[in-house]
Amino acid sequence: MGSVFGNKLKISIFGESHGEGIGVVIDGLPAGEEIDLDEVYRQMQRRAPGGDKTATPRKEADMPEILSGMLGGKTTGAPLCAVIRNTNTRSGDYGNILSSPRPAHSDYAAFVRYNGANDIRGGGHFSGRLTANIVFAGAVCRQILKRRGISIAAHIYSIGNVKDAPFDPTGIDSELITRLNGEKFALVDTSKEDAMRETVGAAHAQGDSIGGIVECIVQGMPAGIGEPMFGGVENIISAAVFGVPAVKGIEFGSGFSGAALLGSQNNDEFYYDENGKVRTRTNNHGGALGGITSGMPIIFRAAVKPTPSISKEQKTVDLQTGENTTLAIKGRHDPCIVPRAVPVIEAAAAVAVMNML
Amino acid sequence: MGSVFGNKLKISIFGESHGEGIGVVIDGLPAGEEIDLDEVYRQMQRRAPGGDKTATPRKEADMPEILSGMLGGKTTGAPLCAVIRNTNTRSGDYGNILSSPRPAHSDYAAFVRYNGANDIRGGGHFSGRLTANIVFAGAVCRQILKRRGISIAAHIYSIGNVKDAPFDPTGIDSELITRLNGEKFALVDTSKEDAMRETVGAAHAQGDSIGGIVECIVQGMPAGIGEPMFGGVENIISAAVFGVPAVKGIEFGSGFSGAALLGSQNNDEFYYDENGKVRTRTNNHGGALGGITSGMPIIFRAAVKPTPSISKEQKTVDLQTGENTTLAIKGRHDPCIVPRAVPVIEAAAAVAVMNML
Amino acid sequence: MGSVFGNKLKISIFGESHGEGIGVVIDGLPAGEEIDLDEVYRQMQRRAPGGDKTATPRKEADMPEILSGMLGGKTTGAPLCAVIRNTNTRSGDYGNILSSPRPAHSDYAAFVRYNGANDIRGGGHFSGRLTANIVFAGAVCRQILKRRGISIAAHIYSIGNVKDAPFDPTGIDSELITRLNGEKFALVDTSKEDAMRETVGAAHAQGDSIGGIVECIVQGMPAGIGEPMFGGVENIISAAVFGVPAVKGIEFGSGFSGAALLGSQNNDEFYYDENGKVRTRTNNHGGALGGITSGMPIIFRAAVKPTPSISKEQKTVDLQTGENTTLAIKGRHDPCIVPRAVPVIEAAAAVAVMNML
Amino acid sequence: MGSVFGNKLKISIFGESHGEGIGVVIDGLPAGEEIDLDEVYRQMQRRAPGGDKTATPRKEADMPEILSGMLGGKTTGAPLCAVIRNTNTRSGDYGNILSSPRPAHSDYAAFVRYNGANDIRGGGHFSGRLTANIVFAGAVCRQILKRRGISIAAHIYSIGNVKDAPFDPTGIDSELITRLNGEKFALVDTSKEDAMRETVGAAHAQGDSIGGIVECIVQGMPAGIGEPMFGGVENIISAAVFGVPAVKGIEFGSGFSGAALLGSQNNDEFYYDENGKVRTRTNNHGGALGGITSGMPIIFRAAVKPTPSISKEQKTVDLQTGENTTLAIKGRHDPCIVPRAVPVIEAAAAVAVMNML
Repeated sequence: MGSVFGNKLKISIFGESHGEGIGVVIDGLPAGEEIDLDEVYRQMQRRAPGGDKTATPRKEADMPEILSGMLGGKTTGAPLCAVIRNTNTRSGDYGNILSSPRPAHSDYAAFVRYNGANDIRGGGHFSGRLTANIVFAGAVCRQILKRRGISIAAHIYSIGNVKDAPFDPTGIDSELITRLNGEKFALVDTSKEDAMRETVGAAHAQGDSIGGIVECIVQGMPAGIGEPMFGGVENIISAAVFGVPAVKGIEFGSGFSGAALLGSQNNDEFYYDENGKVRTRTNNHGGALGGITSGMPIIFRAAVKPTPSISKEQKTVDLQTGENTTLAIKGRHDPCIVPRAVPVIEAAAAVAVMNML
Repeated sequence: MGSVFGNKLKISIFGESHGEGIGVVIDGLPAGEEIDLDEVYRQMQRRAPGGDKTATPRKEADMPEILSGMLGGKTTGAPLCAVIRNTNTRSGDYGNILSSPRPAHSDYAAFVRYNGANDIRGGGHFSGRLTANIVFAGAVCRQILKRRGISIAAHIYSIGNVKDAPFDPTGIDSELITRLNGEKFALVDTSKEDAMRETVGAAHAQGDSIGGIVECIVQGMPAGIGEPMFGGVENIISAAVFGVPAVKGIEFGSGFSGAALLGSQNNDEFYYDENGKVRTRTNNHGGALGGITSGMPIIFRAAVKPTPSISKEQKTVDLQTGENTTLAIKGRHDPCIVPRAVPVIEAAAAVAVMNML
Repeated sequence: MGSVFGNKLKISIFGESHGEGIGVVIDGLPAGEEIDLDEVYRQMQRRAPGGDKTATPRKEADMPEILSGMLGGKTTGAPLCAVIRNTNTRSGDYGNILSSPRPAHSDYAAFVRYNGANDIRGGGHFSGRLTANIVFAGAVCRQILKRRGISIAAHIYSIGNVKDAPFDPTGIDSELITRLNGEKFALVDTSKEDAMRETVGAAHAQGDSIGGIVECIVQGMPAGIGEPMFGGVENIISAAVFGVPAVKGIEFGSGFSGAALLGSQNNDEFYYDENGKVRTRTNNHGGALGGITSGMPIIFRAAVKPTPSISKEQKTVDLQTGENTTLAIKGRHDPCIVPRAVPVIEAAAAVAVMNML
Repeated sequence: MGSVFGNKLKISIFGESHGEGIGVVIDGLPAGEEIDLDEVYRQMQRRAPGGDKTATPRKEADMPEILSGMLGGKTTGAPLCAVIRNTNTRSGDYGNILSSPRPAHSDYAAFVRYNGANDIRGGGHFSGRLTANIVFAGAVCRQILKRRGISIAAHIYSIGNVKDAPFDPTGIDSELITRLNGEKFALVDTSKEDAMRETVGAAHAQGDSIGGIVECIVQGMPAGIGEPMFGGVENIISAAVFGVPAVKGIEFGSGFSGAALLGSQNNDEFYYDENGKVRTRTNNHGGALGGITSGMPIIFRAAVKPTPSISKEQKTVDLQTGENTTLAIKGRHDPCIVPRAVPVIEAAAAVAVMNML
């Protein structure tokens, strides 16, 4: 039942890469909320493969179809289901994965889990394509959150060893949020794009891939939201964000670097701002104390491992013959999914936040 | 409802630092499991404040009392409830926290969340003392897991900038597990203890505190356990481990450092070992692929922020007067909770693992 | 979030009567299970409006399309999504319901719940049409359950005051199960059909409707399944069965009539049967004791209220004018949904049982 | 995990009849709610065995102790835990139940479920004594609900064939609610008490027991509360009420008798009352339409089977010898638990209602 997330707002994701279609059911949306589907599609384009640096619009076939839950541009309160048809299956590209699990892919683990009955074509239910559903659900949620004063933005914090300028953890301005929300290669400091693309290109040239880190900020959360212990901001966001394939770590506020600090360095001092609102001057706590929002932005970083699919030859096993073998993954593969992970992680955060309100 | 965790095995934690008592109800334990309560108490002593480097036994009053769920040393299958009485309240130590929220503590967030009705004495429900319940629940689970071939160990990966030798992520030997499971200051390389204690002592001498990182390994998990997307190993473990106060980050396998690697560096190649078992030579994936166990150890690190309670003067607000003020936290405080976080994080992992089987 | 049911097996239902389509996502199905979709469609036909007493096949358009979770006729272990398109909307039939809530329909309650934003055409998400999804999910589950020796059958226990012969609560033979599973008007004693149809016809002739009772049996459940208190057989089955619109009561075993009995009359005595299996000679307990299966059949009855839609004039309010008014529901309506409720209730029971195993 | 109920408000019940103690953890209570514990205890006395028709106060030992979640008479927002010690174990009374399961008790089902490891003394976790926890939780909830205008009352609808006057389903007056809430033998028409006591006495004289029906009303629920399908009023209330041992059926509004009616008889017509509020003149729907409250009282009846424990000789099996045998249950037993079930069912309804708001 891993494909269902949430409590106050439940999303139920379905689909396999090369099946008939993929989609998501969102249950628990408030009724009467206007949803701009064009904006939803724009968010989905940010995640879609290809299109980066080009004006090529996505094919109509990739448009989600709304089967339920919307009427006259507004939510009805009933579960909202969106379906995206699969049209381009290319199953030939992956002809050998049944026998030879791809290193660092879910192939082997899923083979054991499902006794070999799972659909392995294109990664099946584990395909990155399924994240389109998360983006869809998140984009719907973000419009509702925005109306409640809550904005979410993320950027490529790093690719390989190339770093963007970090977010100001005490808050970023709305122009930056708007700009980032519209980009496929989202950077605070756009001058870093060339260096990052070079890093990606160098990996690609060798048939390799490269990982990175995504940083995400949630602004406008009122103080006092969340639950202690297992119902805290970090628990819920991490449970959602680890639902994004390739995420292998998450840290809030100063996170791992804060673990090397003194209390006097890491503690965020409170003060009354000019409007009489309690704030902190720094935001090492990342917006949550005891699991509950402090009123400061929620800020977290997620580690995205390098795409497992590489064309370099790798050692693996042959599950059919029971012998060790080698594998070079044929066909196109994306050498760096970090830019495309940005809107997915924003969306996962949005779904998580909807579950806190 | 943040104090309830789990699905297949549910733990429900209650208590406030200075109330009558704290405790936990564990629902979903298999019946007929022998539980060595002395071993459970030993695990609880590893977390207990004081006692480190001394032979002083804990006071009887701190012993958990089993109210239900055990008969003749075995689980009955009914919910197991353990209660620990609070005897030493020292509420005077924290006399000013109502008006002045301690920086980096839950005080302010909880004040807003509960409209000031929460028990603030000693941190109330947010007190680190509540983690005794997690250790209790985890210690019970660990005995059951051990009978199924699953062992859990953790160590102080770092305090400040002093690092222990890391775990071999492909597996550690049972002697090391046994030794670590018995220690209050758990290190792979015990020669690092002096340097770590010096770091802690230096912080303490200045009325300050210091953070650190805990590394945890779960060995013996069969391959094929877990669910895709939101039901994966990382989702469930992170949702449990962020239930431990002061944890601000978690990473699996190569985690954040893996995000800077090439795919060819980070991918773990499969091979058949001498027993015909599929394994990987490295374990950058940390034991889970697509959320599902690979049969390799689950390995993760959790960032523990420095204890917020420090006696150095800090700026804060006075919620009663509405003015900015300063605060120096009086009374004893533990300058480094990282050693005591080790058994708590092991326990949280144990509860998480019980929810996967 | 009311449209999601279950824990071990989760079904997530979506759709509105006059929207694009309806459907269900089933998460948690075991992988590798062969599913005969023709048999699934046959079960859906038993619920479908019309077709009773005729050989007219349903239109292709009403066939569910499987979007995911099946490959080569077997479950893949990934969420199974089935979608049924809506083609025939007839929204004109219900032109006045926005202003005048139909007595005993969900119209008024939903209007308040969703601030008038819900899709009211044809009842929207509350339409009986949505039960097609329950039948779909149940029919899939029933094939899996059958392989584990568990069969489910139901019949029209009564319509109005005309009663069928009741099930033998200690068990019915497999021929009867097979016969009932294939019928649209399922009766133990088929000689009662004429009297029931007369009762329905008499109501219909007056523009009225008539209620009834469905009795359902689950055979082959091993003893020892279920949880105490809130996780018992009765809790789970009732939570599922009240998901079927129009069900207003449920009783297990002797149920309400047992409440008038002496203990010595109602208690079911245990004995060893010829195979050394513990059984009871009577089955007033309905297969569950303390919420846990006894090994005897689970037997329950569900009260189905008369269809609210009647063409007789009724009093109601006009929500637009704020005045009392009258209403006669135009268009076709089914004067008795009890026969069609039979496969829906069987299906709800099947989904509930899958959540116990 | 059957001993945990709820989502918005979770109760986690623990304890065995003859263990150290029983209790409940209530997670999700709003903070700052004043709770009159004397009133809570009074509700618990209504359920307590003995004391009926006498002035004997319960022993201090039976008083619940609040371990957490309350401070200065108000809820803190943290989980509230109450524990009741077991002092009087009388395990000798039930010396033979290990070998011979009592007909209609959970003994046999639990024996299989827990492989014989469960605590069988006094019924263990299945003991009716555990319902004290439900009454505790419900009594706390009822005080909170009352402040929101919601009242709950129940009465003995029938014992055997003796019936009380039914509730007016469109609403009862507050005096009747107050009176019923204070009684151990709660009747609308108190003149029926003698006949009911005679029926009970006659059963008792023969070493037998007798069942009955409890009717419960929830007044003051606003319209528009609840979710469609599986999250409806009936689903949630039935899932809670079937948590009360001995309940074998539940019906809402006209329930089973409504199943014999015509739509024109069973439909409740809407009208505007003198305050412009939408109401229905009858309440056959029992306060919920499509699972969502209509603003009319929620009314339901629960069938309570006769107590299984009777001193008459009954047939059963001997699980040790594998032979058929007989059993006469020794010791005191309550010949009719219906009066004591009244406050338990009210409490279960209160917990259910808290989960809807």
